[in-house]
Amino acid sequence: MPVLPAIQRVPEMQAWSERVRRRGERIVMVPTMGFLHEGHLSLVRAGRERGDRLVVSIFANPTQFAPSEDFESYPRDLERDVRLLAAEGVDLLFNPAAEDMYPRGYQTYVDVEAVSRPLCGVHRPGHFRGVATVVLKLFNIVRPHVAVFGLKDYQQVQVIRRMLLDLNLDVEIVACATVREPDGVAMSSRNRYLGAAEREAAACLQSALGKAEALVRGGETSAAKVRDAVVAEIRRQPLARLEYADLCDPDDLEPVSEIRGSTLLALCAWVGKARLIDNRVLGGSQP
Amino acid sequence: MPVLPAIQRVPEMQAWSERVRRRGERIVMVPTMGFLHEGHLSLVRAGRERGDRLVVSIFANPTQFAPSEDFESYPRDLERDVRLLAAEGVDLLFNPAAEDMYPRGYQTYVDVEAVSRPLCGVHRPGHFRGVATVVLKLFNIVRPHVAVFGLKDYQQVQVIRRMLLDLNLDVEIVACATVREPDGVAMSSRNRYLGAAEREAAACLQSALGKAEALVRGGETSAAKVRDAVVAEIRRQPLARLEYADLCDPDDLEPVSEIRGSTLLALCAWVGKARLIDNRVLGGSQP
Repeated sequence: MPVLPAIQRVPEMQAWSERVRRRGERIVMVPTMGFLHEGHLSLVRAGRERGDRLVVSIFANPTQFAPSEDFESYPRDLERDVRLLAAEGVDLLFNPAAEDMYPRGYQTYVDVEAVSRPLCGVHRPGHFRGVATVVLKLFNIVRPHVAVFGLKDYQQVQVIRRMLLDLNLDVEIVACATVREPDGVAMSSRNRYLGAAEREAAACLQSALGKAEALVRGGETSAAKVRDAVVAEIRRQPLARLEYADLCDPDDLEPVSEIRGSTLLALCAWVGKARLIDNRVLGGSQP
Repeated sequence: MPVLPAIQRVPEMQAWSERVRRRGERIVMVPTMGFLHEGHLSLVRAGRERGDRLVVSIFANPTQFAPSEDFESYPRDLERDVRLLAAEGVDLLFNPAAEDMYPRGYQTYVDVEAVSRPLCGVHRPGHFRGVATVVLKLFNIVRPHVAVFGLKDYQQVQVIRRMLLDLNLDVEIVACATVREPDGVAMSSRNRYLGAAEREAAACLQSALGKAEALVRGGETSAAKVRDAVVAEIRRQPLARLEYADLCDPDDLEPVSEIRGSTLLALCAWVGKARLIDNRVLGGSQP
């Protein structure tokens, strides 16, 4: 029965990392909010070959949820998570308490400005501020050489990349392709919110991305026309409510009107009480 | 003739620090904006005994100046600075270019909220955001174990302390007492803006701090009364224009109405085109 050593306290985690780094070993980190699925496990597997010690953090970060959002109900199952990570041969779990990450008097936040603004930034004000802040904190605590993130959260990856560049942090980011269910639905802890009919309806995001890709492959270069097709595809599904469908530059996320070279199509739709996001890079290869 | 090795480029500085840290040596850093005076040199001397390698940075940081402020005219004399630092036995000068610190597309800023708001924060919006951001960047580049700051910039020290605590950065802060001219005027690069009569007038800050201290020693506990005495003392000097005089908690800088235990009296006055700040901790010992 594999065991998984775990650290909850910040100073203990910092001391562990300092010891490991002094030995010249490379630390790989996979930051998660727990309730792990195959998507997370694919990040863990991608991380394993990138260094000597593999640390997974589980921390449902309150500062990236707005008061109206699902922080309280966000699914948790630490026992199952530990079992999954132990089976993957993870070296260490870091699962700090919220009151240690944000003690009384906490007041420091990191803003990554332009890249946080479009897409989810429009609909979740403060979200990427919370993400950037907690990722910076986790990096300062775990001190990884490499950190692995999933491209389902494409904008999050770009926010983190930009933050690391701007703040001169020496952490290599590995971004992994989205893992999908057999019907193409992107794996997400929030899929747990879906009833059976909603779960079927959720496939409309993937089919909209497929429609868009087919159009672009067929020579369509108008972002507006591709977007219209995506909107129409989501509208065909009565259980889905589109939040946004935007075409933008895959690096700085600035909107584009014409598809020339790689273009990100990012989608968000509500199905029942699940807010689902998905994306695809069109007209080029996934970065 | 002592020489002073210098590094301008960020990756070269990071590589130097990585090598030094791997050898187990402790790095002490004194961040400055150049145009060094005895105040800076006292920080350098305080730093020397705190570690194995002493790095001084000179970087006039554009993001902590508002467009209306004196960034363009801020005094510079690199040749003299280098001579002074070499004579102090500094190991390395880090003097990056602004375009390397803030390349095209730069967009990440750190806000330390509550402690940045009062005092200078009221009159220099964005100043402490710029300070926190550049200090975090400098720390990520130079990776010091210890950093030395002067208490003339009392609020700056508290902003940095809070940022380090909140962002889990393992840098020890050493805060040194303000160094003064023989007449009590706090050393500042901006004293260079003062004409002869203005230079004499600048002593009113120090005399106002002295009046306040005498009142508190005499048993006065009303912050309003102490403030009134400070305002009156500054008003006696026609060349000075008070910007603020506030009594506050020396840790979180929250305003106080009653002086019980240590209380910070922070002052700012314009004399000619020099904006001068000074402070004293009353009713207790300087932290």
